[in-house]
Amino acid sequence: MRVPPGLTPADFRDALRQFEQAVGKDWVFSSDEDIDTYRDSYSPFWHESEEPIPSAAVAPAEVEQVQQVVRVANAHKIPLWTISTGKNLGYGGSAPLLGGSVVLDLKRMDRVIEVNDKNHYALVEPGVSYFDLYRWVQDRGLKVWIDPPDPGWGSLVGNALERGGGYTPMRDHFDAHCGMEVVLANGDLVRTGMGALPGAKTWQQYKYGFGPYVDGIFSQSNLGVVTKMGFWLFPQPEAYLSGSVAVAKHDDLFPLVETFAYLMNSGIVQATTTVVSPLAYSRDPQLATLRSGGSTSDLEQYAAQKGIPYWSVSLPFYGPEKVVAAQWEFAKEKFSAIPGAKFQDGASYRFPLNADQLAKIVNPVPFGVPSLQTFSVGGPRSQGHMWFSPIIPMTGEAVLEAQAVFDQVAKDLGGSGAVAGFPIWNFFARAFVIIYFFPIEHEVEKNRRNREIFRRLVKTSAEHGWGEYRTHTAFMGDIMDAYSFNNHSLLRLHQTMKDALDPNGILSPGKNGIWPKAMRKARA
Amino acid sequence: MRVPPGLTPADFRDALRQFEQAVGKDWVFSSDEDIDTYRDSYSPFWHESEEPIPSAAVAPAEVEQVQQVVRVANAHKIPLWTISTGKNLGYGGSAPLLGGSVVLDLKRMDRVIEVNDKNHYALVEPGVSYFDLYRWVQDRGLKVWIDPPDPGWGSLVGNALERGGGYTPMRDHFDAHCGMEVVLANGDLVRTGMGALPGAKTWQQYKYGFGPYVDGIFSQSNLGVVTKMGFWLFPQPEAYLSGSVAVAKHDDLFPLVETFAYLMNSGIVQATTTVVSPLAYSRDPQLATLRSGGSTSDLEQYAAQKGIPYWSVSLPFYGPEKVVAAQWEFAKEKFSAIPGAKFQDGASYRFPLNADQLAKIVNPVPFGVPSLQTFSVGGPRSQGHMWFSPIIPMTGEAVLEAQAVFDQVAKDLGGSGAVAGFPIWNFFARAFVIIYFFPIEHEVEKNRRNREIFRRLVKTSAEHGWGEYRTHTAFMGDIMDAYSFNNHSLLRLHQTMKDALDPNGILSPGKNGIWPKAMRKARA
Repeated sequence: MRVPPGLTPADFRDALRQFEQAVGKDWVFSSDEDIDTYRDSYSPFWHESEEPIPSAAVAPAEVEQVQQVVRVANAHKIPLWTISTGKNLGYGGSAPLLGGSVVLDLKRMDRVIEVNDKNHYALVEPGVSYFDLYRWVQDRGLKVWIDPPDPGWGSLVGNALERGGGYTPMRDHFDAHCGMEVVLANGDLVRTGMGALPGAKTWQQYKYGFGPYVDGIFSQSNLGVVTKMGFWLFPQPEAYLSGSVAVAKHDDLFPLVETFAYLMNSGIVQATTTVVSPLAYSRDPQLATLRSGGSTSDLEQYAAQKGIPYWSVSLPFYGPEKVVAAQWEFAKEKFSAIPGAKFQDGASYRFPLNADQLAKIVNPVPFGVPSLQTFSVGGPRSQGHMWFSPIIPMTGEAVLEAQAVFDQVAKDLGGSGAVAGFPIWNFFARAFVIIYFFPIEHEVEKNRRNREIFRRLVKTSAEHGWGEYRTHTAFMGDIMDAYSFNNHSLLRLHQTMKDALDPNGILSPGKNGIWPKAMRKARA
Repeated sequence: MRVPPGLTPADFRDALRQFEQAVGKDWVFSSDEDIDTYRDSYSPFWHESEEPIPSAAVAPAEVEQVQQVVRVANAHKIPLWTISTGKNLGYGGSAPLLGGSVVLDLKRMDRVIEVNDKNHYALVEPGVSYFDLYRWVQDRGLKVWIDPPDPGWGSLVGNALERGGGYTPMRDHFDAHCGMEVVLANGDLVRTGMGALPGAKTWQQYKYGFGPYVDGIFSQSNLGVVTKMGFWLFPQPEAYLSGSVAVAKHDDLFPLVETFAYLMNSGIVQATTTVVSPLAYSRDPQLATLRSGGSTSDLEQYAAQKGIPYWSVSLPFYGPEKVVAAQWEFAKEKFSAIPGAKFQDGASYRFPLNADQLAKIVNPVPFGVPSLQTFSVGGPRSQGHMWFSPIIPMTGEAVLEAQAVFDQVAKDLGGSGAVAGFPIWNFFARAFVIIYFFPIEHEVEKNRRNREIFRRLVKTSAEHGWGEYRTHTAFMGDIMDAYSFNNHSLLRLHQTMKDALDPNGILSPGKNGIWPKAMRKARA
């Protein structure tokens, strides 16, 4: 039997009995077989003793049971690691950061409490997946869209709390939330925003409530267990239209991104897309030679001969048919200031799609339909992956700077480097994010080397003024360490709040680099 | 000499000397004459001993001076009341909630640190007013809009922290912020979001940073002193177009608001407007008779005869000329489902406006131009005003319910009641807010009665499930008291954070109902 740090097996057995009293005998898991299902399938510590493995898992079905579990954990000083559906793959999956933690698994709390298609919102529990909510909406014929991230099996609550992103105009999932219910470390139950008003009529309609707006402190956090969360939904739009813009010269990137930023920041483009260099996808050996030895103008010439754009960006528009047409027209006007810019109309749809139309769409996620299609694409061949995901400015200069840095990383990882071998995403409103694929192997040495490269990359990024928006549990400490202004004053603020709200340090110790007082020294 | 609660005059004199050492002799004010300028010009306690009057004011010019002031206050346990430009009229102005507090006046911190018109943001200090920033942008010919609230003399930082609203698509001022610098009660200096990364390149471009997102706890709060704040700006749009929709029947309100909510929540209408009953503005005595005794259909008949809409809503559109035209076309299509709906084209502009055009616009605020024009309109005759501002759902049902409640209040205040005698605003994305005018008089008895009505109204609203988004210092305790879910668990959370971050309770005691530990019992 694995035991949480600091507990004796007898203590822990006693605690497990109390957990059983709280949630029922069937919902406390401590056999090796059961625990294996909570390990990180994409662990960068495969076959290494550092892999953090939980000691048990507890799965409450009701808020009151969560409160009881938290109280038992306090009495025994047991670290809990909260998961919603446990699908945070690439960022730690369902496994804790601290080995021996008890996983607080909220998958049984899977109620859709309300979906309103007049004011366009949902109120859900953490165990509700994007598939669940989609089915709920479809079964009732409601005219609202949900906004799934790439894989649809994850939890709305979990993804939003990790500040994940999707594709439609509601793609900033934390920003799209409205109102929370939270169990604090002391077992107290809090509702935020208008939810603090008994019988509130606008809990899912107005975010802030009255007084300090606390919701943010429960994201990427270990200060509470979120048990309900409201989400703003997008009213089913009339139409979708996409168009792509291609430019021929290396330096066209500057006006391309500047115009793109203007359209984004004006609210004319409101959804997720990427800026790419299509050259990067070619496997022509001639191109490889040019890349390593040639000049920019050689590459431009090659691209022109082959009819491949040097850079391109695809623009998605959602809304009334005549509005999206006008938006695309306007975008073309703006991009036409770049000499030689070429435009191509992309897919266009009217909603709702019928089953036939839907079946023809390879990736339905940008149309509010959850999918697992992303797993069929895969990245470079590997046993799994984790993501390195820094935020960079929405400028051509930053894109080129990032390219140079990541070319070097690609070489370090054993590849050849690539001109723009990765897309630049606009998952968030006003900045780019790079989602860089790091392979996970079942070979100890390879993983060790990759972890080293990852850590070096965190430092290199910080030197460029870029920080990661999210990371695998294995690197949370490294990344928080980079956010070090004024000798880590923000971390000190987090620690002060942690100690005040969770004096026994029972909630997700180490999450995002925040350790409770008792463990802080040992971890420094 | 006024003295803060709990201090002796000798102690306080000592503290004032130390404040002088921190900020310079000229910037500590303790004469009655100087202090008078910090009193609330619209105090509901005129001529009453309860009026909270500060003991002094301190005006630092630099962040380091703010840190020193906070340290002096800690050493002497002096309550500070932070203001930016002190123009929070109707909500307490520049006066503290607790009499004898020292006003921490940030007006000298008035630097515009950066305005970027490629990525469309500004970084400013608390003393920067909307006028200041507007001039800064105009002088440099930058193509960005600011979003002023009604009066333009207030502070961007102050207004955003109080979660105020404006008119353009950036109208939710707290939501439009990106990144903060904060002096904590212990004098520590924190940067939030990406600002925690030394040399950050995206402090004003990505909000969340890494780990818990703390910015919200510094809004409507007494947990820190914000010394810098980033704001997203709207790129100068190509055009503006407005159109109005009028309907003839009482029950048309239901589809009118439902369609309006669809347009809002779809991002087709992105700016501030009101739903009104134009009947309310008529002073015809026949109408007064109908209102008190007549039926709904009598009123409908009257409205039809006189050619006055029963309800109307004006729709503002900002963006490319062809896009705003398409949006208005689509809106008309949608509203046409209401039999007899009538449409009228309103103002349309292309930007930038020249001086002649601008001079002809009575209220330029919706076009990003700060103004004090609002003071020339005024409300009912009075010596000042305060606002009662509950959030209600964006439904016709809620509007009618609110009307009934507020009709009664109007009668209580000595008027005759009025059918929809107040506009319903959409200052925030997905809910309505009522901004109800409460007169301030220079007569003690009238103010006492009005305060009583105000308090009753807070309770009545709470019984309907409506909470206020903001309030005058005089009622902060009453309103926080209404947010009482689970025996005030959210307030307990606030108090735990307050005690951890500000153990001496020096920052703005009582703000939004949050008192430090030492004063909590006495205030309960």
